Amino acid sequence: MELFYSPEVSAGTCRLSPEESNHCVKVLRHRVGDLINVIDGAGTMYQCRLLSDNPKAAEASVVESNPGWGAHPYSLTLAVCPTKNNDRYEWFAEKATEVGVDRICPVIGDRSERKVFKTDRLHKIVLSATKQSLKALIPEIDEPVSVREFISSVKDDDSLKLIAYCFEGEKERISIRKALEDNRSEKVIVLIGPEGDFSPEEAALAIGSGFIPVHLGPSRLRTETAAVTAAEAMYFHNI
Amino acid sequence: MELFYSPEVSAGTCRLSPEESNHCVKVLRHRVGDLINVIDGAGTMYQCRLLSDNPKAAEASVVESNPGWGAHPYSLTLAVCPTKNNDRYEWFAEKATEVGVDRICPVIGDRSERKVFKTDRLHKIVLSATKQSLKALIPEIDEPVSVREFISSVKDDDSLKLIAYCFEGEKERISIRKALEDNRSEKVIVLIGPEGDFSPEEAALAIGSGFIPVHLGPSRLRTETAAVTAAEAMYFHNI
Repeated sequence: MELFYSPEVSAGTCRLSPEESNHCVKVLRHRVGDLINVIDGAGTMYQCRLLSDNPKAAEASVVESNPGWGAHPYSLTLAVCPTKNNDRYEWFAEKATEVGVDRICPVIGDRSERKVFKTDRLHKIVLSATKQSLKALIPEIDEPVSVREFISSVKDDDSLKLIAYCFEGEKERISIRKALEDNRSEKVIVLIGPEGDFSPEEAALAIGSGFIPVHLGPSRLRTETAAVTAAEAMYFHNI
Repeated sequence: MELFYSPEVSAGTCRLSPEESNHCVKVLRHRVGDLINVIDGAGTMYQCRLLSDNPKAAEASVVESNPGWGAHPYSLTLAVCPTKNNDRYEWFAEKATEVGVDRICPVIGDRSERKVFKTDRLHKIVLSATKQSLKALIPEIDEPVSVREFISSVKDDDSLKLIAYCFEGEKERISIRKALEDNRSEKVIVLIGPEGDFSPEEAALAIGSGFIPVHLGPSRLRTETAAVTAAEAMYFHNI
C-alpha cells in the first residue's frame, strides 16, 4: 500500500508537494481518475481521486476520510539524549516510529558528549517510517532542550513519567513492564539518558518532579536500544 | 567495564588473539599484573591477571571464573530472511544480541529478493554487541539455508516454534505475547519472513511442522524491526 503525505487537505481537496507530486505522477505513473491514499500527518488517511496529474503540483479530491487510521491506543513521548553517532539516533527515531511513538524530544544531559543536535534529517526519517508502517500520524520532533528544561516543562503534565537508565548501584528501581502494569496511564513519558548516564542532580530533579525510576531489564543497552526498548514495552503492554 | 574475548582458555591460562592483545596492551595500556575481564564466548567470564603484555600475544592467568555471566533465562533462536539492505540485517543482529538472542539463522524464502547472504561481518557485529551488553555468550550464526530446510531441521525440536509475519487476510493468529504466555517454554524459535512475506507453501509447511502463526501487533513492521520486536517480546516476557 502506497501512501502520499499532504498537510494541505481542505474543503475536500488535497494538494501534493512538488516532491510527492513527482513521486505520484512520474515514478508511480498515476493519472487523473486514479485512486490514491494520502495521510495528513495529523492522524487522518484520505482516499482520494486524482484531479490533476501535474508532476509538480498534483491535486486530488477526497473520496473518504479515515480519522485515527493506524493509531495506537496510547500517547508516548520519548525524551532521549543524543547518541555519539548520529546514525544511531536516526535509527531509534525510525524504529520507534514503526513500533509507535507520538513525540520525540532530543534532550541534552549534563554528561552528554554531544551538546548540539540537529533535527532536520529526523523529520524525513519519521515521515518515511510513518508511511512504511501504515500510520497517519507523524510523530512530533521537538527542538533540543536540556534535560533540566525538559523536566521542568512536563512538571504539571499528568502523564505517567518514567526515567530509565543505569543509576549504577541503586536498587530501588522497578522494571518498566511493572511500572506500566501498576499505573494504567494511556499517556506516558520516558526519559532516557546519555552513554554516561544522568548526573545525580538530573536524576534527583526528575524524581522530585514525579518521574519514577525504572530499569529496562538485565541487559546493558545502548542509548538508542534503550529508547526502542521503551517503545516496545509500551507496544507490548497494549497488544 | 571493558571485556576481552578469547576462546582459548585452558588450564587456568588465557591467550588473547593479536587483535585483542593490541587493544589490551597498545590501546588500553594494560601491563603485567593488571586485572582484565575475558569472555570465552561460550558463557563464562574470567577475571584474569595479565602474565604477558606482548602486544601481539598477551597472556593472562585466571583468577576467578563466572559461568553463566550475563545469561538470560531462556534460549531464543531467530530465523530471519535477509533484508534487501544488508545494513538492516546487521542492525537486527546487533540489537537482538544486546536484548538477548542465542542463535541467528539467516533463511532464504521463496519470495526473498536476496538469495545469497554472507555472514562474515555478522560475527564481528555480534561479538561487539555481546561485549557491549555485558554478556559472555556470543550468539551462534548459522550459514544460510532455505526456509524449507530450516523448518525440516527443527521438525523434532521440542522448542516452542512461532512463525511471524503478515499472512494478509488470515485472522487466526494470536499475538506473540499471548503465545509466550500460553506456552511456558524456555526454548523458543521464531521464524520471520522476507519483505514479500512467506509463500503459502512455506507457511503451510511450517504450520504442519508445529509452528504456531503469531502476529507482532498492529504495526506493519519491516523485517528487521519484526525480528528485534520478537526478541523484545521474549525479553519482556522474562523480566
